[in-house]
Amino acid sequence: MSNIIEKNVDLLKKANVYFDGRVTSRNYTDKDGVVKSLGVMLPGEYTFNTKAPESMEILGGKVEVLILSGLDNNWETYGAGETFEVPGNSSFEIKVLELADYCCTYLS
Amino acid sequence: MSNIIEKNVDLLKKANVYFDGRVTSRNYTDKDGVVKSLGVMLPGEYTFNTKAPESMEILGGKVEVLILSGLDNNWETYGAGETFEVPGNSSFEIKVLELADYCCTYLS
Repeated sequence: MSNIIEKNVDLLKKANVYFDGRVTSRNYTDKDGVVKSLGVMLPGEYTFNTKAPESMEILGGKVEVLILSGLDNNWETYGAGETFEVPGNSSFEIKVLELADYCCTYLS
Repeated sequence: MSNIIEKNVDLLKKANVYFDGRVTSRNYTDKDGVVKSLGVMLPGEYTFNTKAPESMEILGGKVEVLILSGLDNNWETYGAGETFEVPGNSSFEIKVLELADYCCTYLS
């Protein structure tokens, strides 16, 4: 995990709620002005669309991910401490096998 | 809601997970050193024990709460923008009628 505590952040109190609350997150801006969100995904299968490119750090749990861009699409498995990147203006499918705790960084 | 954005906080990245993920939260320390957590509760009925006294601000959703201390215990309903306080070393029962988004402040 990159940092256990993120210091000096601006934290939005209201939660983002997706899929009837099976995925929730809260946005914050880190000390360098980078927008991130910390979230939890309950077991299930979800599809997300991206605007900005995203870096997804899995803090806990286990997921399988299929990034829907390019020609060579394969499901990949990620666990605690692992990160995957998703291009902007694309989408990805995620199968959450074990409750997943994550940090998403919006890349610009 | 007291503040939409909490500025200059130290945010713990790892989530707290209760009741198989139906209640999750993340802890942070605000700019004055007060420990708080932002969480989400999916519909259901839960019991929580307190150590420190807590102030629970409901940011969204609808809950019914029974605080298990004192003689005069009644279920009370709270919605967005409302707050209830729970004594230390006690417990409370909460029925989440609609997905609830909350901010818990640990009072000392």
